[in-house]
Amino acid sequence: MDIHPIGVIHTPLLNKEGPIQSARSLLSGTAEIFPQFTDALTGLDGFSHIFLLYTFHQVTGKVKMMVKPFLDDKLQGLFSTRSPNRPNPIGLSIVKVLDIDEGKIVFLGADMLNGSPLLDIKPYIPDFDCFPSARCGWFECRKIK
Amino acid sequence: MDIHPIGVIHTPLLNKEGPIQSARSLLSGTAEIFPQFTDALTGLDGFSHIFLLYTFHQVTGKVKMMVKPFLDDKLQGLFSTRSPNRPNPIGLSIVKVLDIDEGKIVFLGADMLNGSPLLDIKPYIPDFDCFPSARCGWFECRKIK
Repeated sequence: MDIHPIGVIHTPLLNKEGPIQSARSLLSGTAEIFPQFTDALTGLDGFSHIFLLYTFHQVTGKVKMMVKPFLDDKLQGLFSTRSPNRPNPIGLSIVKVLDIDEGKIVFLGADMLNGSPLLDIKPYIPDFDCFPSARCGWFECRKIK
Repeated sequence: MDIHPIGVIHTPLLNKEGPIQSARSLLSGTAEIFPQFTDALTGLDGFSHIFLLYTFHQVTGKVKMMVKPFLDDKLQGLFSTRSPNRPNPIGLSIVKVLDIDEGKIVFLGADMLNGSPLLDIKPYIPDFDCFPSARCGWFECRKIK
């Protein structure tokens, strides 16, 4: 399967030392949608939060099955982490919509690198997407908070 | 960017008439991870919920920018819906982990078609992923509940 960007994400993050997760980021960013897709944004301004799917475009190096997460000091299985170096380097961030105008979505919670190719936008719906009491393994027991 | 499956998802859903969202599905499924990636599942059994990213592999036809969602009778912009016919047909489901053994994840909340190519697995972390009071536009005002 071949995938093609629907836009590009502009953020202040120029390197890999930025925030770890969008929920902890106070940075804003702009998702710029290519003209042929902007009609598909209709109605999106009714949603306070959206999923952004994008490519970890600056990831290099061999994908390792065991990795040390930013927030822990023990090796964990790659799929139990959000490490960007994955077999399919697709990033997922839930961000807060601040404004949508002329094909540009301004959002709060930027945690992706500047220039990340945008693959998809999905509405965040608490009925489907919110599990407040979900258990989260090593993350609950981590040393770094 | 070219993407390659890390596994395949087995579900009882053989056609497109199945459940709409995993949170509303009482069906179980099995995500079978290919042998070269099974080490990356280490630690995932500590998480009660996970994101599955997969391909909407049976979608055909032209992608339309305005679509009628299953749960409404009005046209909405594609990106404000979860319609599978998207520029990049990547599906996202949050499912509940029932068991992980020998590279197979048994889960509750199957809403993807049988045979869906699995692209990625990410842990669900309420601190990052749960927004209980998120507004959700047309979905809140929909006629079909």
